[in-house]
Amino acid sequence: MPHQLLRVQNFNVSSDGFGAGEHQSLERPFGHADPGQMFAWAGATASWPNRTDPGGSRGLDDYLTRDFANNIGAEIMGRNKFSPHRGPWQDHEWRGWWGDEPPFHTPVFVMTHHERPSFTLSDTTFHFVGGDPADVLEQAREAAGGKDVRLGGGAATVREFLDADLVDTLHVAVSPDVVIGSGSRLWESPEELFDRFHCDVVPSPSGVVHHLFWRK
Amino acid sequence: MPHQLLRVQNFNVSSDGFGAGEHQSLERPFGHADPGQMFAWAGATASWPNRTDPGGSRGLDDYLTRDFANNIGAEIMGRNKFSPHRGPWQDHEWRGWWGDEPPFHTPVFVMTHHERPSFTLSDTTFHFVGGDPADVLEQAREAAGGKDVRLGGGAATVREFLDADLVDTLHVAVSPDVVIGSGSRLWESPEELFDRFHCDVVPSPSGVVHHLFWRK
Repeated sequence: MPHQLLRVQNFNVSSDGFGAGEHQSLERPFGHADPGQMFAWAGATASWPNRTDPGGSRGLDDYLTRDFANNIGAEIMGRNKFSPHRGPWQDHEWRGWWGDEPPFHTPVFVMTHHERPSFTLSDTTFHFVGGDPADVLEQAREAAGGKDVRLGGGAATVREFLDADLVDTLHVAVSPDVVIGSGSRLWESPEELFDRFHCDVVPSPSGVVHHLFWRK
Repeated sequence: MPHQLLRVQNFNVSSDGFGAGEHQSLERPFGHADPGQMFAWAGATASWPNRTDPGGSRGLDDYLTRDFANNIGAEIMGRNKFSPHRGPWQDHEWRGWWGDEPPFHTPVFVMTHHERPSFTLSDTTFHFVGGDPADVLEQAREAAGGKDVRLGGGAATVREFLDADLVDTLHVAVSPDVVIGSGSRLWESPEELFDRFHCDVVPSPSGVVHHLFWRK
Protein backbone atom coordinates (compact mmCIF):
# COMPACT_ATOMS: atom_id res chain seq x y z
CA MET A 1 0.00 0.00 0.00
CA PRO A 2 1.34 3.49 -0.76
CA HIS A 3 1.86 5.91 2.10
CA GLN A 4 -0.88 8.22 0.76
CA LEU A 5 -3.92 6.13 -0.12
CA LEU A 6 -6.37 6.85 -2.93
CA ARG A 7 -9.75 6.33 -1.29
CA VAL A 8 -13.29 6.24 -2.65
CA GLN A 9 -15.37 7.41 0.26
CA ASN A 10 -19.15 7.52 0.83
CA PHE A 11 -19.93 6.76 -2.79
CA ASN A 12 -23.61 5.87 -3.25
CA VAL A 13 -24.97 3.46 -5.82
CA SER A 14 -28.38 1.98 -6.53
CA SER A 15 -29.12 -1.73 -6.21
CA ASP A 16 -28.42 -1.99 -9.95
CA GLY A 17 -25.03 -0.30 -9.63
CA PHE A 18 -25.64 3.25 -10.86
CA GLY A 19 -24.18 6.35 -9.21
CA ALA A 20 -26.41 8.73 -11.18
CA GLY A 21 -29.16 8.60 -13.79
CA GLU A 22 -29.38 10.03 -17.29
CA HIS A 23 -30.07 13.60 -18.43
CA GLN A 24 -27.99 15.56 -15.91
CA SER A 25 -29.01 19.22 -15.84
CA LEU A 26 -28.62 22.34 -13.74
CA GLU A 27 -31.75 21.38 -11.81
CA ARG A 28 -30.93 17.67 -11.57
CA PRO A 29 -27.24 16.97 -10.81
CA PHE A 30 -28.01 13.24 -10.58
CA GLY A 31 -30.17 13.19 -13.75
CA HIS A 32 -33.40 11.25 -13.37
CA ALA A 33 -32.14 9.61 -10.12
CA ASP A 34 -33.33 11.03 -6.81
CA PRO A 35 -30.34 12.05 -4.65
CA GLY A 36 -32.62 12.54 -1.62
CA GLN A 37 -33.43 8.84 -1.72
CA MET A 38 -29.82 7.79 -2.36
CA PHE A 39 -28.31 9.92 0.43
CA ALA A 40 -31.09 9.36 2.97
CA TRP A 41 -28.88 7.14 5.14
CA ALA A 42 -26.16 9.83 5.38
CA GLY A 43 -28.60 12.72 5.78
CA ALA A 44 -29.99 11.10 8.93
CA THR A 45 -26.62 11.14 10.72
CA ALA A 46 -25.24 13.68 13.18
CA SER A 47 -22.11 14.18 11.03
CA TRP A 48 -23.92 15.10 7.80
CA PRO A 49 -22.32 18.44 6.87
CA ASN A 50 -25.50 19.95 5.44
CA ARG A 51 -27.66 19.35 8.54
CA THR A 52 -29.95 22.25 9.30
CA ASP A 53 -31.57 20.74 12.40
CA PRO A 54 -29.66 19.49 15.46
CA GLY A 55 -29.63 15.82 16.39
CA GLY A 56 -29.10 12.95 14.00
CA SER A 57 -28.04 9.35 14.57
CA ARG A 58 -24.59 8.40 15.91
CA GLY A 59 -24.48 4.73 14.98
CA LEU A 60 -22.74 2.91 12.13
CA ASP A 61 -23.86 5.29 9.37
CA ASP A 62 -22.51 8.20 11.37
CA TYR A 63 -19.04 6.62 11.62
CA LEU A 64 -18.95 6.35 7.85
CA THR A 65 -20.34 9.83 7.21
CA ARG A 66 -17.74 11.28 9.56
CA ASP A 67 -14.93 9.44 7.84
CA PHE A 68 -15.56 11.37 4.60
CA ALA A 69 -12.99 13.96 5.67
CA ASN A 70 -10.75 11.83 7.94
CA ASN A 71 -7.09 12.22 6.88
CA ILE A 72 -8.09 13.49 3.41
CA GLY A 73 -5.81 16.17 1.93
CA ALA A 74 -7.20 16.50 -1.60
CA GLU A 75 -10.06 15.31 -3.83
CA ILE A 76 -10.12 14.23 -7.47
CA MET A 77 -13.46 14.50 -9.28
CA GLY A 78 -14.72 14.13 -12.83
CA ARG A 79 -15.94 17.10 -14.87
CA ASN A 80 -19.54 15.86 -14.61
CA LYS A 81 -19.46 15.88 -10.82
CA PHE A 82 -18.40 19.53 -10.98
CA SER A 83 -20.75 20.80 -13.64
CA PRO A 84 -23.72 19.98 -15.89
CA HIS A 85 -21.98 21.69 -18.82
CA ARG A 86 -20.16 19.73 -21.53
CA GLY A 87 -17.39 20.77 -23.92
CA PRO A 88 -15.38 24.02 -23.68
CA TRP A 89 -16.31 26.39 -20.85
CA GLN A 90 -18.69 29.08 -22.19
CA ASP A 91 -17.80 31.33 -19.26
CA HIS A 92 -16.37 30.97 -15.76
CA GLU A 93 -19.56 31.86 -13.91
CA TRP A 94 -20.27 28.28 -12.88
CA ARG A 95 -18.43 27.47 -9.64
CA GLY A 96 -19.88 24.06 -8.73
CA TRP A 97 -23.11 22.91 -7.08
CA TRP A 98 -22.03 23.62 -3.53
CA GLY A 99 -22.49 27.35 -2.96
CA ASP A 100 -19.95 29.57 -1.19
CA GLU A 101 -18.80 26.91 1.29
CA PRO A 102 -18.11 23.67 -0.54
CA PRO A 103 -17.87 20.59 1.73
CA PHE A 104 -14.36 19.61 0.60
CA HIS A 105 -12.07 21.98 2.58
CA THR A 106 -9.03 20.86 0.53
CA PRO A 107 -7.69 21.33 -2.98
CA VAL A 108 -10.01 19.67 -5.54
CA PHE A 109 -8.71 18.48 -8.91
CA VAL A 110 -11.41 18.50 -11.61
CA MET A 111 -10.48 16.29 -14.56
CA THR A 112 -11.26 18.00 -17.86
CA HIS A 113 -9.76 18.44 -21.32
CA HIS A 114 -10.78 22.10 -21.23
CA GLU A 115 -8.52 24.62 -19.52
CA ARG A 116 -9.79 26.98 -16.89
CA PRO A 117 -8.08 29.04 -14.16
CA SER A 118 -8.12 27.76 -10.57
CA PHE A 119 -10.42 29.51 -8.09
CA THR A 120 -11.04 29.39 -4.34
CA LEU A 121 -14.32 29.29 -2.41
CA SER A 122 -13.87 29.45 1.36
CA ASP A 123 -11.20 26.80 2.14
CA THR A 124 -11.68 24.79 -1.07
CA THR A 125 -9.57 25.51 -4.16
CA PHE A 126 -10.64 24.00 -7.49
CA HIS A 127 -7.96 23.17 -10.07
CA PHE A 128 -8.78 22.04 -13.62
CA VAL A 129 -6.41 19.42 -14.92
CA GLY A 130 -5.92 17.26 -18.00
CA GLY A 131 -3.72 14.21 -18.26
CA ASP A 132 -4.28 10.57 -17.45
CA PRO A 133 -5.33 9.25 -14.02
CA ALA A 134 -1.75 8.58 -12.86
CA ASP A 135 -0.71 12.19 -13.67
CA VAL A 136 -3.72 13.65 -11.90
CA LEU A 137 -3.14 11.43 -8.87
CA GLU A 138 0.47 12.58 -8.68
CA GLN A 139 -0.63 16.24 -8.60
CA ALA A 140 -3.29 15.52 -5.99
CA ARG A 141 -0.84 13.61 -3.77
CA GLU A 142 1.58 16.51 -3.91
CA ALA A 143 -1.18 18.94 -2.86
CA ALA A 144 -2.45 16.66 -0.08
CA GLY A 145 0.37 17.45 2.35
CA GLY A 146 1.07 13.84 3.26
CA LYS A 147 -2.60 12.92 3.70
CA ASP A 148 -4.75 10.58 1.61
CA VAL A 149 -6.53 11.56 -1.61
CA ARG A 150 -10.27 11.05 -1.99
CA LEU A 151 -11.58 9.96 -5.38
CA GLY A 152 -14.92 11.73 -5.43
CA GLY A 153 -16.60 10.26 -8.51
CA GLY A 154 -18.76 10.12 -10.52
CA ALA A 155 -18.92 6.48 -11.41
CA ALA A 156 -17.10 6.91 -14.75
CA THR A 157 -14.18 8.58 -12.99
CA VAL A 158 -14.00 5.84 -10.34
CA ARG A 159 -14.03 3.24 -13.14
CA GLU A 160 -11.18 5.03 -14.90
CA PHE A 161 -8.98 4.85 -11.78
CA LEU A 162 -10.01 1.25 -11.07
CA ASP A 163 -9.09 0.29 -14.62
CA ALA A 164 -5.67 1.92 -14.09
CA ASP A 165 -5.38 -0.04 -10.79
CA LEU A 166 -4.77 3.13 -8.76
CA VAL A 167 -7.50 2.77 -6.11
CA ASP A 168 -6.44 1.51 -2.65
CA THR A 169 -9.74 1.45 -0.71
CA LEU A 170 -13.42 1.95 -1.55
CA HIS A 171 -16.44 2.58 0.61
CA VAL A 172 -19.54 2.14 -1.52
CA ALA A 173 -23.01 2.40 0.02
CA VAL A 174 -25.57 0.33 -1.88
CA SER A 175 -29.23 1.31 -1.49
CA PRO A 176 -31.18 -1.93 -1.92
CA ASP A 177 -34.50 -0.13 -2.49
CA VAL A 178 -33.25 2.24 -5.18
CA VAL A 179 -33.29 1.22 -8.86
CA ILE A 180 -31.97 3.72 -11.43
CA GLY A 181 -32.00 1.57 -14.57
CA SER A 182 -29.69 3.65 -16.78
CA GLY A 183 -27.05 6.36 -16.44
CA SER A 184 -23.58 6.36 -14.91
CA ARG A 185 -22.73 2.84 -13.79
CA LEU A 186 -20.08 1.76 -11.28
CA TRP A 187 -20.57 -1.98 -11.66
CA GLU A 188 -22.97 -4.75 -12.57
CA SER A 189 -22.18 -6.29 -9.18
CA PRO A 190 -19.68 -5.65 -6.36
CA GLU A 191 -18.28 -9.12 -7.03
CA GLU A 192 -16.47 -7.72 -10.06
CA LEU A 193 -13.88 -6.30 -7.67
CA PHE A 194 -13.41 -9.41 -5.52
CA ASP A 195 -10.42 -10.64 -7.51
CA ARG A 196 -8.37 -7.53 -6.63
CA PHE A 197 -9.91 -6.44 -3.33
CA HIS A 198 -10.92 -7.83 0.03
CA CYS A 199 -14.47 -6.77 0.89
CA ASP A 200 -16.47 -6.41 4.10
CA VAL A 201 -20.19 -6.35 3.31
CA VAL A 202 -21.88 -4.59 6.24
CA PRO A 203 -25.67 -4.15 6.26
CA SER A 204 -26.61 -1.10 8.32
CA PRO A 205 -29.72 -1.04 10.54
CA SER A 206 -30.83 1.90 8.32
CA GLY A 207 -31.17 -0.45 5.34
CA VAL A 208 -28.19 0.69 3.28
CA VAL A 209 -25.47 -1.94 2.74
CA HIS A 210 -21.92 -0.65 3.17
CA HIS A 211 -19.24 -2.29 1.04
CA LEU A 212 -15.70 -1.72 2.31
CA PHE A 213 -12.98 -2.79 -0.13
CA TRP A 214 -9.26 -2.79 0.32
CA ARG A 215 -6.53 -3.91 -2.03
CA LYS A 216 -5.31 -7.51 -1.77
CA MET B 1 -26.22 16.62 23.11
CA PRO B 2 -23.40 18.74 24.57
CA HIS B 3 -20.94 20.36 22.19
CA GLN B 4 -18.08 18.22 23.55
CA LEU B 5 -19.23 14.61 23.77
CA LEU B 6 -18.13 12.08 26.37
CA ARG B 7 -17.41 8.97 24.30
CA VAL B 8 -16.59 5.39 25.24
CA GLN B 9 -14.51 4.19 22.32
CA ASN B 10 -13.22 0.74 21.35
CA PHE B 11 -14.10 -0.77 24.71
CA ASN B 12 -13.88 -4.57 24.62
CA VAL B 13 -16.04 -6.93 26.64
CA SER B 14 -16.49 -10.69 26.73
CA SER B 15 -19.76 -12.38 25.77
CA ASP B 16 -20.64 -12.36 29.48
CA GLY B 17 -20.02 -8.62 29.79
CA PHE B 18 -16.60 -8.37 31.47
CA GLY B 19 -13.92 -5.86 30.48
CA ALA B 20 -11.22 -7.60 32.52
CA GLY B 21 -10.79 -10.63 34.76
CA GLU B 22 -9.77 -10.96 38.40
CA HIS B 23 -6.30 -10.77 39.98
CA GLN B 24 -4.81 -7.87 38.02
CA SER B 25 -1.03 -7.79 38.40
CA LEU B 26 2.03 -6.21 36.85
CA GLU B 27 2.28 -9.16 34.47
CA ARG B 28 -1.45 -9.40 33.77
CA PRO B 29 -3.12 -5.97 33.31
CA PHE B 30 -6.40 -7.75 32.44
CA GLY B 31 -6.17 -10.26 35.30
CA HIS B 32 -6.99 -13.82 34.28
CA ALA B 33 -8.55 -12.60 31.00
CA ASP B 34 -6.48 -12.83 27.81
CA PRO B 35 -6.16 -9.39 26.18
CA GLY B 36 -4.68 -10.95 23.02
CA GLN B 37 -7.95 -12.80 22.48
CA MET B 38 -10.11 -9.76 23.33
CA PHE B 39 -8.22 -7.32 21.09
CA ALA B 40 -7.63 -9.73 18.22
CA TRP B 41 -10.16 -7.93 15.99
CA ALA B 42 -8.41 -4.57 16.46
CA GLY B 43 -4.90 -5.99 16.23
CA ALA B 44 -5.65 -7.30 12.74
CA THR B 45 -6.45 -3.83 11.36
CA ALA B 46 -4.19 -1.41 9.47
CA SER B 47 -4.89 1.36 12.01
CA TRP B 48 -3.83 -0.59 15.12
CA PRO B 49 -1.27 1.75 16.72
CA ASN B 50 0.97 -1.05 18.00
CA ARG B 51 1.40 -2.79 14.63
CA THR B 52 4.90 -4.03 14.06
CA ASP B 53 4.32 -5.52 10.61
CA PRO B 54 2.91 -3.62 7.62
CA GLY B 55 -0.48 -4.50 6.15
CA GLY B 56 -3.62 -5.17 8.13
CA SER B 57 -7.28 -5.09 7.15
CA ARG B 58 -9.06 -1.89 6.06
CA GLY B 59 -12.68 -2.97 6.44
CA LEU B 60 -15.25 -2.28 9.16
CA ASP B 61 -12.96 -3.08 12.11
CA ASP B 62 -10.38 -0.66 10.73
CA TYR B 63 -12.90 2.21 10.64
CA LEU B 64 -13.59 1.64 14.32
CA THR B 65 -9.95 1.22 15.31
CA ARG B 66 -9.11 4.46 13.49
CA ASP B 67 -11.89 6.32 15.23
CA PHE B 68 -10.24 5.79 18.62
CA ALA B 69 -8.45 9.13 18.25
CA ASN B 70 -10.88 10.98 15.96
CA ASN B 71 -11.73 14.39 17.45
CA ILE B 72 -10.61 13.29 20.94
CA GLY B 73 -8.92 15.98 23.05
CA ALA B 74 -8.58 14.23 26.43
CA GLU B 75 -9.09 10.85 28.12
CA ILE B 76 -10.49 9.94 31.51
CA MET B 77 -9.45 6.59 32.98
CA GLY B 78 -9.82 4.75 36.26
CA ARG B 79 -6.87 4.13 38.57
CA ASN B 80 -6.93 0.41 37.74
CA LYS B 81 -6.50 1.07 34.03
CA PHE B 82 -3.39 3.09 34.85
CA SER B 83 -1.78 0.82 37.40
CA PRO B 84 -1.91 -2.57 39.16
CA HIS B 85 -1.16 -0.87 42.50
CA ARG B 86 -3.86 -0.10 45.04
CA GLY B 87 -3.96 2.47 47.86
CA PRO B 88 -1.47 5.31 48.34
CA TRP B 89 1.38 5.52 45.80
CA GLN B 90 4.49 3.85 47.25
CA ASP B 91 6.69 5.77 44.82
CA HIS B 92 6.29 7.53 41.48
CA GLU B 93 8.30 5.05 39.46
CA TRP B 94 5.24 3.52 37.83
CA ARG B 95 4.28 5.51 34.74
CA GLY B 96 1.60 3.31 33.17
CA TRP B 97 1.68 0.17 31.02
CA TRP B 98 2.42 1.92 27.75
CA GLY B 99 6.15 2.66 27.71
CA ASP B 100 7.68 5.94 26.59
CA GLU B 101 5.09 6.63 23.87
CA PRO B 102 1.60 6.09 25.25
CA PRO B 103 -1.13 5.77 22.59
CA PHE B 104 -3.24 8.67 23.93
CA HIS B 105 -1.47 11.81 22.58
CA THR B 106 -3.66 14.05 24.78
CA PRO B 107 -4.02 14.93 28.44
CA VAL B 108 -5.18 11.88 30.45
CA PHE B 109 -7.07 12.26 33.75
CA VAL B 110 -6.54 9.31 36.08
CA MET B 111 -9.24 9.12 38.76
CA THR B 112 -7.76 8.38 42.16
CA HIS B 113 -8.17 9.41 45.79
CA HIS B 114 -4.39 9.49 46.13
CA GLU B 115 -2.51 12.61 45.08
CA ARG B 116 0.42 12.46 42.72
CA PRO B 117 2.15 15.07 40.54
CA SER B 118 1.36 15.21 36.81
CA PHE B 119 3.99 13.91 34.39
CA THR B 120 4.47 13.85 30.63
CA LEU B 121 5.59 11.01 28.35
CA SER B 122 6.03 12.06 24.73
CA ASP B 123 2.78 13.94 23.85
CA THR B 124 0.68 12.43 26.65
CA THR B 125 0.37 14.17 30.04
CA PHE B 126 -1.09 12.22 32.96
CA HIS B 127 -2.99 14.13 35.65
CA PHE B 128 -4.20 12.50 38.88
CA VAL B 129 -7.55 13.82 40.03
CA GLY B 130 -10.08 13.19 42.78
CA GLY B 131 -13.67 14.37 42.81
CA ASP B 132 -16.87 12.94 41.41
CA PRO B 133 -17.39 12.08 37.72
CA ALA B 134 -18.99 15.45 36.90
CA ASP B 135 -15.98 17.34 38.34
CA VAL B 136 -13.48 15.19 36.49
CA LEU B 137 -15.43 15.54 33.24
CA GLU B 138 -15.39 19.32 33.61
CA GLN B 139 -11.60 19.33 33.98
CA ALA B 140 -11.17 16.99 31.01
CA ARG B 141 -13.48 19.11 28.81
CA GLU B 142 -11.48 22.20 29.64
CA ALA B 143 -8.22 20.43 28.70
CA ALA B 144 -9.70 19.00 25.48
CA GLY B 145 -9.53 22.26 23.52
CA GLY B 146 -13.07 22.04 22.16
CA LYS B 147 -12.77 18.37 21.19
CA ASP B 148 -14.56 15.35 22.65
CA VAL B 149 -13.47 13.47 25.76
CA ARG B 150 -12.86 9.72 25.66
CA LEU B 151 -13.89 7.67 28.66
CA GLY B 152 -11.21 4.99 28.60
CA GLY B 153 -12.44 2.53 31.22
CA GLY B 154 -12.12 0.14 32.95
CA ALA B 155 -15.63 -1.18 33.25
CA ALA B 156 -16.16 0.15 36.79
CA THR B 157 -15.26 3.66 35.64
CA VAL B 158 -17.60 3.45 32.65
CA ARG B 159 -20.37 2.26 34.99
CA GLU B 160 -19.74 5.20 37.31
CA PHE B 161 -20.21 7.71 34.48
CA LEU B 162 -23.23 5.81 33.10
CA ASP B 163 -24.82 5.88 36.55
CA ALA B 164 -24.27 9.67 36.65
CA ASP B 165 -25.83 9.88 33.15
CA LEU B 166 -22.79 11.66 31.71
CA VAL B 167 -22.01 9.37 28.74
CA ASP B 168 -23.12 10.53 25.27
CA THR B 169 -21.96 7.69 23.00
CA LEU B 170 -20.48 4.22 23.49
CA HIS B 171 -18.73 1.88 21.12
CA VAL B 172 -18.46 -1.51 22.81
CA ALA B 173 -16.98 -4.48 20.94
CA VAL B 174 -18.40 -7.79 22.21
CA SER B 175 -16.30 -10.91 21.58
CA PRO B 176 -18.84 -13.75 21.29
CA ASP B 177 -16.21 -16.45 21.75
CA VAL B 178 -14.64 -15.01 24.90
CA VAL B 179 -16.00 -15.89 28.36
CA ILE B 180 -14.32 -14.31 31.40
CA GLY B 181 -16.69 -15.43 34.17
CA SER B 182 -15.67 -12.97 36.90
CA GLY B 183 -13.86 -9.67 37.27
CA SER B 184 -14.73 -6.15 36.14
CA ARG B 185 -18.20 -6.18 34.62
CA LEU B 186 -19.73 -3.60 32.27
CA TRP B 187 -23.17 -5.19 32.02
CA GLU B 188 -25.18 -8.40 32.24
CA SER B 189 -26.48 -7.57 28.77
CA PRO B 190 -26.31 -4.58 26.36
CA GLU B 191 -30.10 -4.36 26.66
CA GLU B 192 -29.67 -2.70 30.05
CA LEU B 193 -28.83 0.52 28.19
CA PHE B 194 -31.68 0.40 25.67
CA ASP B 195 -33.97 2.59 27.75
CA ARG B 196 -31.56 5.53 27.59
CA PHE B 197 -29.67 4.89 24.35
CA HIS B 198 -30.32 4.05 20.72
CA CYS B 199 -28.14 1.11 19.65
CA ASP B 200 -26.85 -0.20 16.33
CA VAL B 201 -25.75 -3.82 16.71
CA VAL B 202 -23.25 -4.47 13.91
CA PRO B 203 -21.70 -7.94 13.52
CA SER B 204 -18.30 -7.66 11.85
CA PRO B 205 -17.05 -10.24 9.34
CA SER B 206 -14.18 -10.79 11.84
CA GLY B 207 -16.62 -12.25 14.39
CA VAL B 208 -16.68 -9.39 16.91
CA VAL B 209 -20.05 -7.63 17.35
CA HIS B 210 -19.84 -3.86 17.51
CA HIS B 211 -22.44 -2.10 19.65
CA LEU B 212 -22.83 1.60 18.88
CA PHE B 213 -24.94 3.48 21.42
CA TRP B 214 -26.00 7.10 21.37
CA ARG B 215 -28.14 8.99 23.82
CA LYS B 216 -31.90 9.19 23.15
